[in-house]
Amino acid sequence: MLRAGIVGATGIAGQQFIVALQDHPWFEISRLAASSRSAGRTYGEALRDAKTGARRWWCEEEPSAEVLALPVEDGDRLDARGLDIVFSATESDVAQVQEPRFARTTPVVSTASAFRYEADVPLLVPNVNMAHAELLHTQRKDRGWKGFVVPIPNCTVTGLVITLKPLADRFGLDSVVVSTMQGLSGAGRSPGVVGLDILDNIVPYIPKEEEKVERELHKILGTLSAGAIQSHPAVVSATCTRANVMEGHTEAVFASLARRASLDEVRAALRDCRNEARELKLPSAPEEWIHVHEDPFRPQPRLDRNRGGGMTTTVGRVREDKVLRNGVKYLLVTHNTRMGAAAGAVLVAEYLKVRGFLGT
Amino acid sequence: MLRAGIVGATGIAGQQFIVALQDHPWFEISRLAASSRSAGRTYGEALRDAKTGARRWWCEEEPSAEVLALPVEDGDRLDARGLDIVFSATESDVAQVQEPRFARTTPVVSTASAFRYEADVPLLVPNVNMAHAELLHTQRKDRGWKGFVVPIPNCTVTGLVITLKPLADRFGLDSVVVSTMQGLSGAGRSPGVVGLDILDNIVPYIPKEEEKVERELHKILGTLSAGAIQSHPAVVSATCTRANVMEGHTEAVFASLARRASLDEVRAALRDCRNEARELKLPSAPEEWIHVHEDPFRPQPRLDRNRGGGMTTTVGRVREDKVLRNGVKYLLVTHNTRMGAAAGAVLVAEYLKVRGFLGT
Amino acid sequence: MLRAGIVGATGIAGQQFIVALQDHPWFEISRLAASSRSAGRTYGEALRDAKTGARRWWCEEEPSAEVLALPVEDGDRLDARGLDIVFSATESDVAQVQEPRFARTTPVVSTASAFRYEADVPLLVPNVNMAHAELLHTQRKDRGWKGFVVPIPNCTVTGLVITLKPLADRFGLDSVVVSTMQGLSGAGRSPGVVGLDILDNIVPYIPKEEEKVERELHKILGTLSAGAIQSHPAVVSATCTRANVMEGHTEAVFASLARRASLDEVRAALRDCRNEARELKLPSAPEEWIHVHEDPFRPQPRLDRNRGGGMTTTVGRVREDKVLRNGVKYLLVTHNTRMGAAAGAVLVAEYLKVRGFLGT
Amino acid sequence: MLRAGIVGATGIAGQQFIVALQDHPWFEISRLAASSRSAGRTYGEALRDAKTGARRWWCEEEPSAEVLALPVEDGDRLDARGLDIVFSATESDVAQVQEPRFARTTPVVSTASAFRYEADVPLLVPNVNMAHAELLHTQRKDRGWKGFVVPIPNCTVTGLVITLKPLADRFGLDSVVVSTMQGLSGAGRSPGVVGLDILDNIVPYIPKEEEKVERELHKILGTLSAGAIQSHPAVVSATCTRANVMEGHTEAVFASLARRASLDEVRAALRDCRNEARELKLPSAPEEWIHVHEDPFRPQPRLDRNRGGGMTTTVGRVREDKVLRNGVKYLLVTHNTRMGAAAGAVLVAEYLKVRGFLGT
Repeated sequence: MLRAGIVGATGIAGQQFIVALQDHPWFEISRLAASSRSAGRTYGEALRDAKTGARRWWCEEEPSAEVLALPVEDGDRLDARGLDIVFSATESDVAQVQEPRFARTTPVVSTASAFRYEADVPLLVPNVNMAHAELLHTQRKDRGWKGFVVPIPNCTVTGLVITLKPLADRFGLDSVVVSTMQGLSGAGRSPGVVGLDILDNIVPYIPKEEEKVERELHKILGTLSAGAIQSHPAVVSATCTRANVMEGHTEAVFASLARRASLDEVRAALRDCRNEARELKLPSAPEEWIHVHEDPFRPQPRLDRNRGGGMTTTVGRVREDKVLRNGVKYLLVTHNTRMGAAAGAVLVAEYLKVRGFLGT
Repeated sequence: MLRAGIVGATGIAGQQFIVALQDHPWFEISRLAASSRSAGRTYGEALRDAKTGARRWWCEEEPSAEVLALPVEDGDRLDARGLDIVFSATESDVAQVQEPRFARTTPVVSTASAFRYEADVPLLVPNVNMAHAELLHTQRKDRGWKGFVVPIPNCTVTGLVITLKPLADRFGLDSVVVSTMQGLSGAGRSPGVVGLDILDNIVPYIPKEEEKVERELHKILGTLSAGAIQSHPAVVSATCTRANVMEGHTEAVFASLARRASLDEVRAALRDCRNEARELKLPSAPEEWIHVHEDPFRPQPRLDRNRGGGMTTTVGRVREDKVLRNGVKYLLVTHNTRMGAAAGAVLVAEYLKVRGFLGT
Repeated sequence: MLRAGIVGATGIAGQQFIVALQDHPWFEISRLAASSRSAGRTYGEALRDAKTGARRWWCEEEPSAEVLALPVEDGDRLDARGLDIVFSATESDVAQVQEPRFARTTPVVSTASAFRYEADVPLLVPNVNMAHAELLHTQRKDRGWKGFVVPIPNCTVTGLVITLKPLADRFGLDSVVVSTMQGLSGAGRSPGVVGLDILDNIVPYIPKEEEKVERELHKILGTLSAGAIQSHPAVVSATCTRANVMEGHTEAVFASLARRASLDEVRAALRDCRNEARELKLPSAPEEWIHVHEDPFRPQPRLDRNRGGGMTTTVGRVREDKVLRNGVKYLLVTHNTRMGAAAGAVLVAEYLKVRGFLGT
Repeated sequence: MLRAGIVGATGIAGQQFIVALQDHPWFEISRLAASSRSAGRTYGEALRDAKTGARRWWCEEEPSAEVLALPVEDGDRLDARGLDIVFSATESDVAQVQEPRFARTTPVVSTASAFRYEADVPLLVPNVNMAHAELLHTQRKDRGWKGFVVPIPNCTVTGLVITLKPLADRFGLDSVVVSTMQGLSGAGRSPGVVGLDILDNIVPYIPKEEEKVERELHKILGTLSAGAIQSHPAVVSATCTRANVMEGHTEAVFASLARRASLDEVRAALRDCRNEARELKLPSAPEEWIHVHEDPFRPQPRLDRNRGGGMTTTVGRVREDKVLRNGVKYLLVTHNTRMGAAAGAVLVAEYLKVRGFLGT
């Protein structure tokens, strides 16, 4: 078993790491860290709300008794030596300081955005661009680290690149227009989206989200050559909104392909997409990587987000688009806090393990 | 006062006509018609649910005592003579049969789609294409009617053409991509959208909606010349979804203009859009035709749908789009059951009156 | 394996039977029946919406390929011979006619209310009143049936009697006041609760529900003696409302006990309630029959409804009530479509099997 | 015009005071105060979110240009001299310090709970216990204040006492059991109820709410004699829950009357309740004080909360209750942020004015 630490363990993203790891066949949760406020208490104590006594736990699955009994350390003082991997789930400003410190000794897989845009940092999505992991050798060497930092991308871009990648590979990709209707859980809980603001409503703006979608798509679909990632040239235009949905991002995609493809070809490209993560028998890889619906009323976030344990991306309503050159349009649903967050990060870590980046 | 009849008066669209007309300065509600099931009872009786005794009334404003006391006639047998106008709010298949019969003697303004695509039938939107009303002379002559049929368009296209018209006029319009998040009330109530299907969810498909948006936009923005409407050539691509919002359609628009325009020019074109309906002192015309927000968190359907009594279209987040040529993108909120339905139809009728099409 | 038929198989309750039975260790789904409209098609075909082609399936778990391939028979003509049990999930008026016909040859366990109030028909709830099953001998004899009819109670009363039974046993029960906030799924789908009626709302009335709660509670908690059930004498007063919750009924209970009990005694009575169904190793019995929370923010329907696979009743906020004599108050959450419907009916059938009422 | 100051003006309760006062015929908004953070800026500036630039305004009605231009003072330093009244809308701990300071010179009407339970402080509800205002003479004398402090009660108790008062007057009141389903707006916005916690859910606990309901009911329905309020002896038991409803508290009430009353008598007592506030022509008094529905599907919060501008309490489903002695049960809907907060406080202030407590 590889020894894993979780930093930012009391927050919603950290809790999702606990759920993703507590029964994991390869990783064991060895240490937990959070802010100095929580340090020195057990995890169970740290979850208690001081005022009301309620347990501040937000996942459907309960934390195990073993996890609740673990001591919480101060993330700012955590010495990562002895761990095989650190999963980092802090806010970006905290990650900016902590992650390089951990990486001096230990591999870090992170949901934070702090290092996503550094030239020597790959943004890894399984089955899409795991070849970019080679960049970690450069990162280690240039920074003098024994470990490394691998962030996963923004949860909105994850489902998008998963579906665009097979299209780009087969037909080429010139441009993408996307409108999203995103679930509440993506906003976290402190305070996240206030009930009064979203009931009977749509919020048409998620700060920085559209920029992230555009920027990260270019990097993820880019090409690694000569030790650097060449951005993919597709032009991207996003409108990101928040809907009154618990979990699951729904995205209306309009894509311009480099060459004309029939709708059957497009559906086949999505359905037959290679599932390398499954071939490698990664424990978190779903049996089906992309599910394509024929029923025009699908995908729906409530019905489709949990497909494949929240790791499958679901597509429907594949149609021709007449505005864009060689245009196709479709909708997708992706689980923003499973594939798009902790569970997706664990899947990346599993890949890194079988490729020899961990525990050696 | 002009004598108005409302057909389909017990349904949700008919009820909205009652609200829009019951205190109207120009029209009085003279007669009501519905299916043979309701005929012979007072309107108040016809609204009662046989089983539970509950009043099946769905608007916020209550019907007046006078309206509740009116007898309900059978729409299939209604003789429209003596009325100055019929407002038709039936389903399309009923309208197909009834409206031509009424039109033999009496002008009909309708929310039904039955005649929207006939060559001699204009699809009127105030401040957008009221000049198309001239086509009614052709319609009357060719069909041998004393009256005429004027449908209003689908509620989703209304807000779209209201915002695209000033852009098309100033900059030219080449193509439009639009993704909608539509309110529940657009689906009506028999049964409309079932609560179980929409709670914590998005439904990605509204049957026939995308086709209507594309087809009606071409006609509304078209040009009337030589007694016929030439479709506007802009290419349109729509994805229409249902959100858990009571009223108000939110639309994410991406438009390709014929010439480059700065964002300030675009905002100015929207803000300064001529409000002819108000200049003509039409009672239902809002003071502000298009409201443009600077606050990036607007428009929101719950906060913006009721602007101008539900007759103002609200726009926000005007930004550059890099995928489309000379691209701009924005979001809009339009009130689908006010401007997009009965109140919008009444505004059309007001225009027809001042232009001499009614009551002569 | 016992051969089971499901009648009313295409409706929401019938679908829940399919989910509850398709991987069951003791029962196999042998035959399916529905209305004559569906008869003659495979189950998969019968689920297709004629107009849209969408599959009208409403459970989270998918139906198996075997089930989808089963032919659907006409329930009005179904000959139940050869089946070991019929699970009936039709509307009450259909059950009124069909169930006695099936019962002539075959045991029937039903979610319909048609026979709930007949003197020789027990209303069975596991761990509460399974001793009432003895009444089936009387029923069989008096009606000349080889089978029998066992309805399960209304979903709202199920959680109520599960929690009141241990209190009644230990302390005696004089009266109950209960206010419910019930999930949408209890109303079914044709059309069930319309989205427009429940968004941002509470509906304060569920026709016939309060009468059912009061009447069924008396029968379930009653005593079987001399071949008849003596109603429990506790006075009951219910107010039943519908909330915008997908699944799970939340009930605020105020109970007057026959003797004073401390809150610790009350909590202990609930926690230590005998779980006979589990002792008998019934496959659908949850490990924990009643879960009692200390966290005052629980139970919540979304967080607690799925406990024990939806078969555990969850209680919280046990407090003293000063209005009622020896008053205690608490809230409970029960899963109305698992324990309160098909899965609860299957649990009853499992009990009947081990007690020798089936398959002999 | 009386000169009014609003303290806590930037919060949600303060904003409601602005809406309730900005077109008021008797009061003018002269000065605004908030925390030191906002002081020194105009009200319009103080509402801007520093990070996003969005206007943090949460009422449907917009603030007027005059109000937006008013300077915001520091509530901790506000000198209330020159004002005829201070409306206080701060949190309780702030009110604890500020309100006595204001009261030295100026009458204070407050939505805060800080002074609700002091013996010389009446808890005023129009048409219920305005006679308690006489206690203000004692308060002034004993504390040596020129002004006074009048809090309004908790929003949940307001609708309850409004409906119980006419029953207590006519039939006597022995005890009350109440279960509430409360709207989100009662929890405010910092952060109030998080969307993730309430979507598809009920939260069964509102800290301190049940205690407030029980305690404040006793005081409000009590009797003023010999310069002190004798608590009403009715026993009260409340269960308070949060529902996914924007505004409006729904309450399921079970009341034990001192003498038997028919349901017709009960309905008549509610309907014919004296509306003294209207008789006195108080500008905020609704035409109808209590509306009683016959339709069993009412009251519903979305449909009934705005009745009478949110100042009317709506009752329905008046039925017999068999558990309580001489029991009746009903449901009510009250608008928690209109009658239950700022607008209710303004109505109290109007009463105080016509009774000579203000501006003399």
